[in-house]
Amino acid sequence: MAKKRQLKLGTIIHGVGGNIAAWRHPEVLTNASVNFEFYKEQARKSEKAKFDFVFIADGLHINEKSLPHFLNRFEPLTILSALAAVTSRIGLAGTVSTSYSEPFTIARQFSSLDHISHGRAGWNVVTSPLEKTALNFSKTIEEHPNHSKRYRIASEYLDVAKGLWDSWEDDAFIRDKKSGEFFDPEKLHQLNHKGEFFSVQGPLNIGRSKQGRPIIFQAGSSEDGKNLAAKDADAIFTGQETLDDAQKFYQDVKRRTAEYGRNPEHILILPGIEPIVGKTEEEAEQKYQEIANLVSIEQALNYLGRFFEHHDFSQYPLDEPFPEIGDLGSNSFKSGTDRIKQEAKEKNLTLRQVALRAATPRTPFIGTPEKVANLIQEWFEGYGADGFIIHFNLPSNITGFIDHVVPILQDRGLFRTEYESDTLRGNLGLPFPDNRYAQSIVKNG
Amino acid sequence: MAKKRQLKLGTIIHGVGGNIAAWRHPEVLTNASVNFEFYKEQARKSEKAKFDFVFIADGLHINEKSLPHFLNRFEPLTILSALAAVTSRIGLAGTVSTSYSEPFTIARQFSSLDHISHGRAGWNVVTSPLEKTALNFSKTIEEHPNHSKRYRIASEYLDVAKGLWDSWEDDAFIRDKKSGEFFDPEKLHQLNHKGEFFSVQGPLNIGRSKQGRPIIFQAGSSEDGKNLAAKDADAIFTGQETLDDAQKFYQDVKRRTAEYGRNPEHILILPGIEPIVGKTEEEAEQKYQEIANLVSIEQALNYLGRFFEHHDFSQYPLDEPFPEIGDLGSNSFKSGTDRIKQEAKEKNLTLRQVALRAATPRTPFIGTPEKVANLIQEWFEGYGADGFIIHFNLPSNITGFIDHVVPILQDRGLFRTEYESDTLRGNLGLPFPDNRYAQSIVKNG
Repeated sequence: MAKKRQLKLGTIIHGVGGNIAAWRHPEVLTNASVNFEFYKEQARKSEKAKFDFVFIADGLHINEKSLPHFLNRFEPLTILSALAAVTSRIGLAGTVSTSYSEPFTIARQFSSLDHISHGRAGWNVVTSPLEKTALNFSKTIEEHPNHSKRYRIASEYLDVAKGLWDSWEDDAFIRDKKSGEFFDPEKLHQLNHKGEFFSVQGPLNIGRSKQGRPIIFQAGSSEDGKNLAAKDADAIFTGQETLDDAQKFYQDVKRRTAEYGRNPEHILILPGIEPIVGKTEEEAEQKYQEIANLVSIEQALNYLGRFFEHHDFSQYPLDEPFPEIGDLGSNSFKSGTDRIKQEAKEKNLTLRQVALRAATPRTPFIGTPEKVANLIQEWFEGYGADGFIIHFNLPSNITGFIDHVVPILQDRGLFRTEYESDTLRGNLGLPFPDNRYAQSIVKNG
Repeated sequence: MAKKRQLKLGTIIHGVGGNIAAWRHPEVLTNASVNFEFYKEQARKSEKAKFDFVFIADGLHINEKSLPHFLNRFEPLTILSALAAVTSRIGLAGTVSTSYSEPFTIARQFSSLDHISHGRAGWNVVTSPLEKTALNFSKTIEEHPNHSKRYRIASEYLDVAKGLWDSWEDDAFIRDKKSGEFFDPEKLHQLNHKGEFFSVQGPLNIGRSKQGRPIIFQAGSSEDGKNLAAKDADAIFTGQETLDDAQKFYQDVKRRTAEYGRNPEHILILPGIEPIVGKTEEEAEQKYQEIANLVSIEQALNYLGRFFEHHDFSQYPLDEPFPEIGDLGSNSFKSGTDRIKQEAKEKNLTLRQVALRAATPRTPFIGTPEKVANLIQEWFEGYGADGFIIHFNLPSNITGFIDHVVPILQDRGLFRTEYESDTLRGNLGLPFPDNRYAQSIVKNG
């Protein structure tokens, strides 16, 4: 009998929070985004709760209207490496863009993190939505590529990275002091990749890790994003507002994965949610409002603008229907902007309503611990999700979730009480990836 | 009266060692180059000895003839970040090339390390000597630039990095919950750099660190290297074989630094040495020979070849004068290849002698603890060095140095018994760099 399917949980650590005004809440440490002690405490708390991974999001362009957390924060690979040294079992995942970096460098840095952490690294592959990112980079790219080109680059980039991670077979390093053989030259492979965007010889100067190679997350939910995930990812980080939407998305990605010749169980669908729990429904709702009420309409309009290439929404009347803005934003946060525009149209929302909803999004996961646990179970058992990537604006909301929701999920046999493995891959229940060259030897043997 | 000049000491951690065959020594852990526990132990040992910094060297191209340590090792920024989490006072310096990366990315990663470590980051700027490095990178650069162009790129790269590190003035983040001001927009600056090689808008998405910005090391000793150090570096990592050479180099770099309008005391000259101590001269000499004897002549020829674009030296007779190879290598390790060729000519060395010397270089710092301490004092007080970057092939050699040489240096008042500061800059005795924008306000005020 197959092992019972288990819920996977990751948590985003994002300093002063993902909300534009959360930093003003009395509970929030205002320097949290560059406070290592804060990150360490969050990671250890998440590890104690047996979460699969912590997650560090990222972006490569700011202006004076950016979220407070974006202005002054740790870079993912460095903070994850630091967290590797002060944790022992939890996975360490973070965002790096394939549009503004070199595959040799990023494959190497994630592999190095994977070695430092003994097999706990995860890479959230993104393509950088913001047009103006190109202004900060002049060597890797001349101008911001359009959405579809960004995904073609990302796909080839992952081919290169995966190829580089196979440079050395798992047993390539013999290290026999007597014979003087440090490695077996037959088990060292030069990639010699030459493609549309990249030309990379290899080999990589670091060997395979305890989990073979880092776990690949993909965070785009557009058509291109789903296809990239189906081809290359171990998990997809998505935003879904209803169980119905989530189920459709889930089936869609699993089907595409099968179409790429992969086992659909080998990709995990992980919607992002923001659970807020209270002893009563009212207490939970009040906690949501505490953040929402800190956001002014000016800030909400600014925040909304970010999804649309920093479009200035203050030029439109607030209490009239959401303005016609054409294709703006379709080249950046494609699935996000499509959703905002569609919802505005369907629900006939005013600009004020759209802006306030965008600035303080609410997921259905607000209420008593039982209600939130029930919803999680419903989404999980209803195949809307294999697990969740959870974010919190307030430290007390994480504590509330860990202390009151996790035990319910554990009692119901949905979530682990002990780590099953010491690698991220093992805890996610994903198979060890064979080295491509070792496989071919077996096939020919 | 000015404070007494103090010796600065850093130590290179390099896994299985800088020697091609050291890994075969009974004492060496053969997986040390990817063993985080080993790095942690070395860093903590160095911190206990009050060293200024640990140092991680690097390279971006390998082939099957590369040093064992180069084949499979940690990447500097990730391992330094991990070490930041398990140390509290020692500096964390590492090599990153300006020829194969983007200034926005590297400025950001070093700044993030600087925040994680509370002001202990150091960046050793190199330009990547090996021609074939270009084969691993296809976006940042098309072909390996020549020596002089690499240094022009590096110089502009540092202008950009330093500019990005000033994006936010030191007091830019107000974080006033009541007023809702997270930062002062007057103290946020866009760089708008447009130069020969880079076009970078900024601002950087991380603020100034406790030491202002990371310490800059420069590791080239060619004319171009010295000029770059004089213009931009806080310290220069060099190789000098005699006190006389070291003194000339010292004067030369200090003079150039003054010519750039800088205080020559604000650049530290740090030759690399490999001290080996024993209870007697013979015991120290024997420890040197234990490594040298592990190296076969084939390995020595391979290693020599690395300095000359992997030239195949096995084609020449071993016991005849060093062959005429023209300009080979002048575009890679310029100062190193010049020195090898010059020494071969001056001392009329055979190829065998040149190869074995190159494979197991010996510095004068071999002998009893008193002898080694005397030499260090002589070089320091004779202005051949402001300190040293020390490397060791064997863990027992580090321990020998720490246990027996450091106390002598401390007794003589040359080296600290306690850290003076909690930042790398403070311990190196270098001044806090003012933010360029804050300065101009003072001038205009």
